[in-house]
Amino acid sequence: MPDRSVDPELVYSKFETELQVRPDDIDMYQHVHSSRYMDYVLAARFDQMERCYRMPMAEFQQMGYGWFMATAHLNFKSPLALGDRFVVRTWIEKFTLIGVKVQFEIERKAGRKSVCIGWFDYVLVSLQTSRAVRIPEAIRRKYSI
Amino acid sequence: MPDRSVDPELVYSKFETELQVRPDDIDMYQHVHSSRYMDYVLAARFDQMERCYRMPMAEFQQMGYGWFMATAHLNFKSPLALGDRFVVRTWIEKFTLIGVKVQFEIERKAGRKSVCIGWFDYVLVSLQTSRAVRIPEAIRRKYSI
Amino acid sequence: MPDRSVDPELVYSKFETELQVRPDDIDMYQHVHSSRYMDYVLAARFDQMERCYRMPMAEFQQMGYGWFMATAHLNFKSPLALGDRFVVRTWIEKFTLIGVKVQFEIERKAGRKSVCIGWFDYVLVSLQTSRAVRIPEAIRRKYSI
Amino acid sequence: MPDRSVDPELVYSKFETELQVRPDDIDMYQHVHSSRYMDYVLAARFDQMERCYRMPMAEFQQMGYGWFMATAHLNFKSPLALGDRFVVRTWIEKFTLIGVKVQFEIERKAGRKSVCIGWFDYVLVSLQTSRAVRIPEAIRRKYSI
Repeated sequence: MPDRSVDPELVYSKFETELQVRPDDIDMYQHVHSSRYMDYVLAARFDQMERCYRMPMAEFQQMGYGWFMATAHLNFKSPLALGDRFVVRTWIEKFTLIGVKVQFEIERKAGRKSVCIGWFDYVLVSLQTSRAVRIPEAIRRKYSI
Repeated sequence: MPDRSVDPELVYSKFETELQVRPDDIDMYQHVHSSRYMDYVLAARFDQMERCYRMPMAEFQQMGYGWFMATAHLNFKSPLALGDRFVVRTWIEKFTLIGVKVQFEIERKAGRKSVCIGWFDYVLVSLQTSRAVRIPEAIRRKYSI
Repeated sequence: MPDRSVDPELVYSKFETELQVRPDDIDMYQHVHSSRYMDYVLAARFDQMERCYRMPMAEFQQMGYGWFMATAHLNFKSPLALGDRFVVRTWIEKFTLIGVKVQFEIERKAGRKSVCIGWFDYVLVSLQTSRAVRIPEAIRRKYSI
Repeated sequence: MPDRSVDPELVYSKFETELQVRPDDIDMYQHVHSSRYMDYVLAARFDQMERCYRMPMAEFQQMGYGWFMATAHLNFKSPLALGDRFVVRTWIEKFTLIGVKVQFEIERKAGRKSVCIGWFDYVLVSLQTSRAVRIPEAIRRKYSI
């Protein structure tokens, strides 16, 4: 198996989750509140961990691990509004010893308009110690698709 | 057409919306946070206003109307957890001159377990005056299905 | 000590917490979103458990207990808007063997306008079994002020 | 008056807002949910616009302007937990023709621990056209303190 963590040529799969704006996501400007885009990416990621990577968040928790967000970077392009359906596409850009950089793009279904792009840096932590741990090889393999 | 607003024998249609718990809905007890059930009913109601009653919330706003919640009553049966899929069933119990009483029940898809039941009293208000207004006959007819 | 749980003449203390509306609480109608009033009462209750009853939620958790909401009833009077400061007043109306009925009223500071009144029924549960448990006498005493 | 928008030597005032974690901010990991830190900065900014810059958000809205977030960058240091009190410090790093870069740092009061640092790029838009507009000189002056 090629070592994707060091081979910059290798790219990881992009996965998609379709969601819809809820009324409680709308803010005083009649658009989705800025922080909710972060929640949408999180929701898509949880869905894809289970459905696409075949290792849901619950399995990490049972193993005593959690993924903590170290950095979030969001670039807002065009807002979503009430009732909008949209796709959240996420993919791993790269692994480090203790984490992953996940890229995302949110696209409104109507007109395929770009809504928000960005990336999140996650670190694997032990739930017992709250400290970062080296990603076990079995986990890295499951996520290297 | 029978006058459903005065005939207590008449019953209104029940409509269903399927939703899924988002990670940001989960609270410190690993269950859906209590106030989010209210948001779920609201989301279902908006969906059904458009899809089932054929008069979406946006149409009310364009006509200068808004629906304000006067009373909310929620009876919690069994909590939802991360990733749960569920159905929100809502129906009009009765009309008053200026509002409607909407009943709801939330049911988890797995095991068809009852999650939350209750009712919301809504009042139609003029967005200009913020005061309750008599429900126009055309609106009452659309919602009397 | 009088047994307040059976003597209907006895009344329990009312406690107050002052809070302020956050921008993310505002909805598409420029008012506080309906479900957030439930969150405000919850926030006030947590504050008062620690500050007034001298037994914070964390202490319940350490003892293996949690308070789950069985019923919520909210009557909306007049909405809060961006930046509003308000007081949440709560008090125990009565104890049952396994729970408490907590009454609340939310009042806007400017003009002392009534915003929302209602009550929550809480049940004490064991975090291990997720089942209701009889309220220990020591807890009942702390909360019977 | 010195032209702060071109003089890189000039620095703008740092303002502080003290807030407290609400129970509904806590997520399944018993910490403040990641997207809520964005809401905290927003809440602090609204407070400081009114209290420190003497030009509240409502005044922008009355003038037909809104501030839309173009980019958000958050670096998470150490999480906040239930009941924590914290300070949100924000300051303008620089102006552009159509926007501002706002830096922030969130610090837990107990132990003065750094919680989250980052910056938001805002763009001034016309609420009528939803397009970016040049910042009027009167506004720039009020915010150049």
